[in-house]
Amino acid sequence: MTAAAHRSEHDLLGHRDIPAEAYWGIHSLRATENFPITGTPISAYPHLIDALAAVKEAAALANEELGLLEPKKAAAIVAACREIRDGKLHDEFVVDVIQGGAGTSTNMNANEVVANRALELLGHAKGEYRYLHPNEDVNLGQSTNDVYPTAVKIATIFAVRGLLKAMAVLQDAFARKAVEFRDVLKMGRTQLQDAVPMTLGQEFSAYAVMLDEDRSRLAEAVELIHEINLGATAIGTGLNAPAGYAESARRHLAGITGLPLVTAANLVEATQDCGAFVQMSGVLKRIAVKLSKSCNDLRLLSSGPRAGLNEINLPPVQAGSSIMPGKVNPVIPEVVNQVAFEVIGNDVTITMAAEAGQLQLNAFEPIILHSLSESITHLQRACLTLAERCVAGITANEAELRAAVENSIGLVTALNPYIGYEAATDIAKEALAGGRGVAELVLEKGLLPAERLQALLRPEVVAGSGSPKV
Amino acid sequence: MTAAAHRSEHDLLGHRDIPAEAYWGIHSLRATENFPITGTPISAYPHLIDALAAVKEAAALANEELGLLEPKKAAAIVAACREIRDGKLHDEFVVDVIQGGAGTSTNMNANEVVANRALELLGHAKGEYRYLHPNEDVNLGQSTNDVYPTAVKIATIFAVRGLLKAMAVLQDAFARKAVEFRDVLKMGRTQLQDAVPMTLGQEFSAYAVMLDEDRSRLAEAVELIHEINLGATAIGTGLNAPAGYAESARRHLAGITGLPLVTAANLVEATQDCGAFVQMSGVLKRIAVKLSKSCNDLRLLSSGPRAGLNEINLPPVQAGSSIMPGKVNPVIPEVVNQVAFEVIGNDVTITMAAEAGQLQLNAFEPIILHSLSESITHLQRACLTLAERCVAGITANEAELRAAVENSIGLVTALNPYIGYEAATDIAKEALAGGRGVAELVLEKGLLPAERLQALLRPEVVAGSGSPKV
Amino acid sequence: MTAAAHRSEHDLLGHRDIPAEAYWGIHSLRATENFPITGTPISAYPHLIDALAAVKEAAALANEELGLLEPKKAAAIVAACREIRDGKLHDEFVVDVIQGGAGTSTNMNANEVVANRALELLGHAKGEYRYLHPNEDVNLGQSTNDVYPTAVKIATIFAVRGLLKAMAVLQDAFARKAVEFRDVLKMGRTQLQDAVPMTLGQEFSAYAVMLDEDRSRLAEAVELIHEINLGATAIGTGLNAPAGYAESARRHLAGITGLPLVTAANLVEATQDCGAFVQMSGVLKRIAVKLSKSCNDLRLLSSGPRAGLNEINLPPVQAGSSIMPGKVNPVIPEVVNQVAFEVIGNDVTITMAAEAGQLQLNAFEPIILHSLSESITHLQRACLTLAERCVAGITANEAELRAAVENSIGLVTALNPYIGYEAATDIAKEALAGGRGVAELVLEKGLLPAERLQALLRPEVVAGSGSPKV
Amino acid sequence: MTAAAHRSEHDLLGHRDIPAEAYWGIHSLRATENFPITGTPISAYPHLIDALAAVKEAAALANEELGLLEPKKAAAIVAACREIRDGKLHDEFVVDVIQGGAGTSTNMNANEVVANRALELLGHAKGEYRYLHPNEDVNLGQSTNDVYPTAVKIATIFAVRGLLKAMAVLQDAFARKAVEFRDVLKMGRTQLQDAVPMTLGQEFSAYAVMLDEDRSRLAEAVELIHEINLGATAIGTGLNAPAGYAESARRHLAGITGLPLVTAANLVEATQDCGAFVQMSGVLKRIAVKLSKSCNDLRLLSSGPRAGLNEINLPPVQAGSSIMPGKVNPVIPEVVNQVAFEVIGNDVTITMAAEAGQLQLNAFEPIILHSLSESITHLQRACLTLAERCVAGITANEAELRAAVENSIGLVTALNPYIGYEAATDIAKEALAGGRGVAELVLEKGLLPAERLQALLRPEVVAGSGSPKV
Repeated sequence: MTAAAHRSEHDLLGHRDIPAEAYWGIHSLRATENFPITGTPISAYPHLIDALAAVKEAAALANEELGLLEPKKAAAIVAACREIRDGKLHDEFVVDVIQGGAGTSTNMNANEVVANRALELLGHAKGEYRYLHPNEDVNLGQSTNDVYPTAVKIATIFAVRGLLKAMAVLQDAFARKAVEFRDVLKMGRTQLQDAVPMTLGQEFSAYAVMLDEDRSRLAEAVELIHEINLGATAIGTGLNAPAGYAESARRHLAGITGLPLVTAANLVEATQDCGAFVQMSGVLKRIAVKLSKSCNDLRLLSSGPRAGLNEINLPPVQAGSSIMPGKVNPVIPEVVNQVAFEVIGNDVTITMAAEAGQLQLNAFEPIILHSLSESITHLQRACLTLAERCVAGITANEAELRAAVENSIGLVTALNPYIGYEAATDIAKEALAGGRGVAELVLEKGLLPAERLQALLRPEVVAGSGSPKV
Repeated sequence: MTAAAHRSEHDLLGHRDIPAEAYWGIHSLRATENFPITGTPISAYPHLIDALAAVKEAAALANEELGLLEPKKAAAIVAACREIRDGKLHDEFVVDVIQGGAGTSTNMNANEVVANRALELLGHAKGEYRYLHPNEDVNLGQSTNDVYPTAVKIATIFAVRGLLKAMAVLQDAFARKAVEFRDVLKMGRTQLQDAVPMTLGQEFSAYAVMLDEDRSRLAEAVELIHEINLGATAIGTGLNAPAGYAESARRHLAGITGLPLVTAANLVEATQDCGAFVQMSGVLKRIAVKLSKSCNDLRLLSSGPRAGLNEINLPPVQAGSSIMPGKVNPVIPEVVNQVAFEVIGNDVTITMAAEAGQLQLNAFEPIILHSLSESITHLQRACLTLAERCVAGITANEAELRAAVENSIGLVTALNPYIGYEAATDIAKEALAGGRGVAELVLEKGLLPAERLQALLRPEVVAGSGSPKV
Repeated sequence: MTAAAHRSEHDLLGHRDIPAEAYWGIHSLRATENFPITGTPISAYPHLIDALAAVKEAAALANEELGLLEPKKAAAIVAACREIRDGKLHDEFVVDVIQGGAGTSTNMNANEVVANRALELLGHAKGEYRYLHPNEDVNLGQSTNDVYPTAVKIATIFAVRGLLKAMAVLQDAFARKAVEFRDVLKMGRTQLQDAVPMTLGQEFSAYAVMLDEDRSRLAEAVELIHEINLGATAIGTGLNAPAGYAESARRHLAGITGLPLVTAANLVEATQDCGAFVQMSGVLKRIAVKLSKSCNDLRLLSSGPRAGLNEINLPPVQAGSSIMPGKVNPVIPEVVNQVAFEVIGNDVTITMAAEAGQLQLNAFEPIILHSLSESITHLQRACLTLAERCVAGITANEAELRAAVENSIGLVTALNPYIGYEAATDIAKEALAGGRGVAELVLEKGLLPAERLQALLRPEVVAGSGSPKV
Repeated sequence: MTAAAHRSEHDLLGHRDIPAEAYWGIHSLRATENFPITGTPISAYPHLIDALAAVKEAAALANEELGLLEPKKAAAIVAACREIRDGKLHDEFVVDVIQGGAGTSTNMNANEVVANRALELLGHAKGEYRYLHPNEDVNLGQSTNDVYPTAVKIATIFAVRGLLKAMAVLQDAFARKAVEFRDVLKMGRTQLQDAVPMTLGQEFSAYAVMLDEDRSRLAEAVELIHEINLGATAIGTGLNAPAGYAESARRHLAGITGLPLVTAANLVEATQDCGAFVQMSGVLKRIAVKLSKSCNDLRLLSSGPRAGLNEINLPPVQAGSSIMPGKVNPVIPEVVNQVAFEVIGNDVTITMAAEAGQLQLNAFEPIILHSLSESITHLQRACLTLAERCVAGITANEAELRAAVENSIGLVTALNPYIGYEAATDIAKEALAGGRGVAELVLEKGLLPAERLQALLRPEVVAGSGSPKV
């Protein structure tokens, strides 16, 4: 006699055969059939799987504490959840990342995997739900509508930690260059036109500061998603979650995850609200905008090698052309630009999904999770790639940069306080038209004595802040 | 002998006639010719005009304090700025709201109006710039690149104050309804399907709480734009702004506006960065998303009057149809939805403009100002309109709402803890198929004693949180 | 005895006083009170007002033809509509451009203005609706739900004509420069890195071709909006529009407007569908994307004057800086970029409004009209401004451009077929590292005889298409 | 003696070991290291791999025809390409879908795989490029900048064919329901308020017609991408592609793919232009908007079962809730909504990527390919899922629908032509206030004789078009 290849499970639609070895059950099966959209299962988001297990574990402990769940069952559920959080059974999370139903299939999948593993730990066969039931025991006191958003938030918190670290690495790479280039004089530009002198170090310092600010904003946004609605159950009224459950579950979940989670004051509002996700996505978009701007600059400053600005050199990382020999392209900034465009598009997706929520629930949180996870993960990889494969190896063409400053018309701006905006305008026009230098024209016209002029036009002085010490 | 109809002014392109009575000058004239885009002059944004005048006033005081500007000139500039801040001369701000040049034309327009008014106050004719010059005196120590973003920020702060107040009015309107409807039982819905009971008060309370949270987020976002870059001049290096200028100008500007302004730590970064505007727009988008969701709900709950949900009644404010007599439509929520769509579109515009910044400056701040102002102003009006013309007059159809609860299948959820998810599923299926009630089926099957059942299914209990006190 | 200052009108909400001189009536009054959003009345869209009058005129003629409207009344309505189409009474169209109610207030406003003017023409006083009624006569056989989308489509067709002409002007400006610069050699660039030679004429030709293609796409999109739903009445079932009405009204409207209008085959679908507007906006976005790209290029190619690419010179149109004397900025391309960002944002607004339609109608067409009109009008002005104030005056720095080609490493690509990609790669690397020329290295290594090499590397040959005739 | 585990290859950066069994080479290796973004290799897009092989095959045939490539080499390249088009070697396409470099890595990957397979077919070992070289032979006369966009277009054409078929399936499903429900009377609604009667068949017919129109638009958009730039090489000047090459390659490619491809008239323009992709994405967005609207309607019409509109029943496909027994949710429409939101977000991504192109090339086509492919594929699956798992099984609650019509106030609209808009308004108001029927009030007031009234108010008549035959 051999083991059966299948077990039978049933739901409100009838019976279905489930492969005997599967930890997932009939609800997961139906979902995989109903949502053949991306081909990517939720196991692709390990932070989410871990977070689901953490929620189920916390709920079991709370239910046990309140006397609603037998200690033996609770222990088995907790043990199953810990296995999942240790990285096991992730491939049993099979439902598609884009799914109808507000995350119900994801929650059902979690309930089934936890229940079947717990059954095994209790010495039963998978599917013997009379001993421990996915809905009645694992999901006890819960609803998809509080479990899923809570898990998504915890998953997002952990994902954002990775992004924050990657941003710090990139910030550090820019900051090192800011120090390295602190004495490299160059022309600053506004509206792509020559403006006034600055240092290349100041330029790179700005990129570092941008990232620093963005990290602060991201840290603030992630604070907001520490507010969870566990205990809300179906619509926030807490139906079937007894007094004390929400607080107990929160306490256990905080302990398990190490996160300072708080329960929302108004659970009806918290259950339908996606504001914190919209805000998080908005901050990710802000980061994307500035990363993209920085990469645009890096590509522009390294344009050339001969018919471009040619101010800096990005380290070559691959041949740039299948036809043009020796061509090297700024492929690393280019890939970061593309990630930025993706993040900005994802923000629109998340916005529409959030707006589409109706009455007591937003049914479209799965696409929010999907888009948010993609944005965070890709930004993280983009930051690290940019730091390690590009910024760290940038060099400057110092001599050419300094020559451009000395040859510039923008230096005349420094004379405004001494010869006036109108006279300076005439000098600038004449210099441009005649291909001449600002200094020689000022001297020629006797507007300032030579020594004074030399002091005022010293590039180091012009690039610095404040007036020269003359 | 009659007064001349024109005066002549010149710039680097040559001479132009300016109408004698105009306070604006040649730079403004060229800009009006160059940017015939919207037909809307910047005077349409009075907060911006006031903010520009405040900046010019603060700069003049700082310049005087540092001995760079004669007290007489400074006094005239200050007096002119105060007139503008008192609402005078606004129609002299004639350049188009969408303009090339990073706001240069707006700053030039301000310089010219202030200079010409100051000249008059000093007893000179308009255009006699040898006595007081738009660029050399009014713009002394400044650049468009620090004046314009500083003024945009101050204008935004004042505009946001109006929005915050309007949101508070709307929140209060929802909160009053939450109290009024606190005992009105109704069915909650998830995914548009009947879920479990709640009160209409809880439903309206959620809208109030959403607004409260959004107000907190908006207040945080507005904090970020108190950081200004005045003193940065052209690219953040502070060229031509002497030591002490930035701090003096900030102090005076804080005094004039009453705002706790701070100077950015890194002025090069601050001069090119639009992150705070992107973030502000992101928060406005968040507000729009949730306002739109709330209005979608109001329209849905008031659908009918006979073939809809017909739970609440919006106050009629106009005839709804040119062909269908007696029809009344939810026109107020509908107009709010449209403002929300506009704000969400504006966020994309702002995002693209911010991303397009290059090197030391973002040349596209005028469209950022325009879109941001539009979003803030329209949201403010939408909130007030929604509060006063809709929410305040909403009434509930209590009897019908209660009947729907008593007739609902969703009540069975409350029995999960007593008869189990699987038995409850069977009851629900049978009730739906046979058009019967949950209670009668439970009794018929002897699953619970009548008295117990009645206690468990009391709508007030089901709608409340926690288990019944039985 | 003096004339009364007011007349009294009533609707389903009660009576209101209307200023005696107003052609608008009670429905318009309520709408102005209900929608205080933008402050911009629909009279700001003259194409829309004309189109509304054309629809009302066509409907009156159809109703007369079918014997439903007395000839005398019809004649008065027609005469009133013609006055409006002649530009009169536009300032009586007072309702806000952003309004709830699917355009009902706009239609009601039109009905009232036409009725009151027709009443006057018939010798009655304004408001004496018993002689001729806004709804019963002017709106006879119509509903907002067919009148408004039909009028919006006609208005859009006329607006697009203006845009098509402006695009042709810009295309022509680019094409003239393509001819002017046809012999100006320059380095082509991919990914901002030096690629291979081309002519500046080829570069400008591409901008002209882009516009030509975009005009074709726009012409196709405008074809689609010649399909109208007049005769659909409230929901497309044609209730209250007798047999023959739809066809008669269409025929008259086609005659009045000179447009080959067709009636949609399925009026239920046509009444709820906004697809043609979404498509139109998508094409406007396409145009914006390419205009923005072209302007980005113009700004980049004219960067400098000394520390930039400095390939072309944009005509100076205003002083560029309030602090940097002599600085001239690419303000015209910059303003076009900003219009492009606005159009792209408007596309998101239109998308969301279209998606939000429910069941038999889209209630959000007013914001679609508003955003679409803004996009079309601003693009039109941007194209003309760009053509006239920028492209027409562009000059090239020919000598510098040619020198860059002769000094380039990219020339080596032309040797691939003769020395191979790998050998060419080595030459390129050595040229770059040593600051040397491609030709001298090839000769030094004896890879090709001097005469052959000279022929192969002639810039004119490399820039042309096909292999050299050697 | 054993076979070596690695072979050595080199590029301009130096030597690297390549696994002996790999068909990809050093350029692919560097790309996989440089772009660790999504973890998804380009092999996930089989249409793209096939299209790349088709381009390489066509180029080899053209090169052979023009005497530039030895017949033996050409034959080997062709044979290798055919294997790939037969589905072999796809897993050798290893570079990430999001990559810097304008698709260079994808093209290099293709060159390497084809070269190494061709080498094997010629009896050589992989990596013996002296016999047949990835760049000098496989890429002969080509550049990434013509190969990649051409391949992306061909891949898109084939993907769109799948989508068109899926849309036809969905259209057919709606059309069948339109027939099935052609006699089911119901209330039509505008702005969610009861309007006038129609049939459920008309309602479903509109969904079918929408899809039919969208299919026409999609077919038009796909026409535009039959224009390719093969032969343009690096920047459109055709450098290194001899006379006759472009036409020969096009002819062969058309033969291989069976597609009526045409070569762009202006190759410089065609090489930098992404307009056709933007337009394609715009049409996909249009489809998404209308699919989403249709799904919103389906969810609304099936709301309930007891406290909703409850007009139609969607087939249950899975249990809807982990806590609410018996609850069934509209999960299929919900998943389609989410795909629509994704497509709309992708359109923004594509728009930004297109706008970011500079000078002679758009470096960001990889993200355009990625987003476009995702949109097409997910829409295809969403259409099929919606057709098969939802629309096909929809049933109607006929009795309730008819009762709602008979009980409606909207019927009064049909009396406008007989009793006038104002009298009808009074009837409507009184009916609503008193909970009475329209007919009884009209009779009570003696406005119409009973028989006439009955004829006018017959729902079939009111729902039909045109006036009753009385």
